[in-house]
Amino acid sequence: AAKAQRVKRAIQVNRERGESPVRKHGSHHLVSTTNKPIRFNKLFFNEQRHYDDTSGKFRCSIPGVYFFTYHLTVYPKDARVGLYKNDKAVMLTYDQFQENNVDQASGSIVLRLEAGDEVWLQVYGDEKHGGIYADNTNDSTFSGFLLYPNTPATSQRR
Amino acid sequence: AAKAQRVKRAIQVNRERGESPVRKHGSHHLVSTTNKPIRFNKLFFNEQRHYDDTSGKFRCSIPGVYFFTYHLTVYPKDARVGLYKNDKAVMLTYDQFQENNVDQASGSIVLRLEAGDEVWLQVYGDEKHGGIYADNTNDSTFSGFLLYPNTPATSQRR
Amino acid sequence: AAKAQRVKRAIQVNRERGESPVRKHGSHHLVSTTNKPIRFNKLFFNEQRHYDDTSGKFRCSIPGVYFFTYHLTVYPKDARVGLYKNDKAVMLTYDQFQENNVDQASGSIVLRLEAGDEVWLQVYGDEKHGGIYADNTNDSTFSGFLLYPNTPATSQRR
Ligand SMILES: [Ca+2]
Ligand SMILES: [Ca+2]
Ligand SMILES: [Ca+2]
Repeated sequence: AAKAQRVKRAIQVNRERGESPVRKHGSHHLVSTTNKPIRFNKLFFNEQRHYDDTSGKFRCSIPGVYFFTYHLTVYPKDARVGLYKNDKAVMLTYDQFQENNVDQASGSIVLRLEAGDEVWLQVYGDEKHGGIYADNTNDSTFSGFLLYPNTPATSQRR
Repeated sequence: AAKAQRVKRAIQVNRERGESPVRKHGSHHLVSTTNKPIRFNKLFFNEQRHYDDTSGKFRCSIPGVYFFTYHLTVYPKDARVGLYKNDKAVMLTYDQFQENNVDQASGSIVLRLEAGDEVWLQVYGDEKHGGIYADNTNDSTFSGFLLYPNTPATSQRR
Repeated sequence: AAKAQRVKRAIQVNRERGESPVRKHGSHHLVSTTNKPIRFNKLFFNEQRHYDDTSGKFRCSIPGVYFFTYHLTVYPKDARVGLYKNDKAVMLTYDQFQENNVDQASGSIVLRLEAGDEVWLQVYGDEKHGGIYADNTNDSTFSGFLLYPNTPATSQRR
């Protein structure tokens, strides 16, 4: 049982880029939209398919403690992003953009999740905070992995 | 024994925000002070209570290899932060602030710790480097978790 | 066998600084060079010696799923860095530098590696993107660790 669980540990890393596989000079491949999850459309590691690239959400199937981290390219406007757990923004990252000064913003979190819990990134606030950028030479990423699955002892304790 | 150790693995993520739960326009909730640890007053995951939110220090109880990471909102001045292990700054992160250009600064480290070792973040240098900011919509975080507990073989090797 | 594998888990964190242990005012300890891996010359945790500080490359000896993360000080010019896996840049991080505004850029990735696979950081593009800086009070780091070693089941699945 322990071995099976190890194999099934949820892991994923995802990268978003513009739709076009060809880099176009002067075209912005913005991916951020307000009021819905940021979709990371390039999946690097998603063997268990716990990240749904249609909804943009990670869905927990193995209860336990997870680590998530994201790294965003800030351009061409400010970025304010929330890490959501089940419709609640539990962490917020804000970075202001200035002309000719592309920036990087990042965040990490350790969370205990139950089966069915969902985690995703979303622009927090209105459109002027949607400066999360990606194209062929600029990545914005969202990664996560299971640290420790719940044990019988964990369940008893809680 | 293995199961017990797994359950006791030290994990924590902590978030600092201003004291006020209400966001006040124009009021700065600075949390950084020189010469003492930055206190992260919002505890997200600290089940084993290995992070002491009074002292601001993580204290190792399970010897092994740990991963720590932090993500700081840089505002309204420069930020220079040291990750300390037992009174020694083992890593330094520096980010300059410019008007209307809030930034994000982050760092990560893998460290082997013995029982009793302490790890924390602290402004490095004088007050002008204390621009670590947090309020209701801007987080600054410190996270960490045990990667691999020491084994008898580890102890022998060392 | 399980215990032995645990002990041998590849872990490393590395920090680059200038050659001089003494901080020199006005001298830049640039470490980035185009067309070859960035060498992290200060090894924090490299017990298994899976990071080769001569080549600048991490070499996988235990097949499995790995996590890597890097945090770079951007100065005194723009920085565009690729995380390479076997001569292919699988992730790119870009941050522009502006006068008096040192920045931080970071990235993370989850990757499945086979024995012999190599992972490293390298400036992507020409010299004007080589603004990765380190000196006695400014770190730039590269860390990584094994999340889950392959299991017989993993091998069968693939
Ligand atoms: Ca920048
Ligand atoms: Ca900024
Ligand atoms: Ca800056």
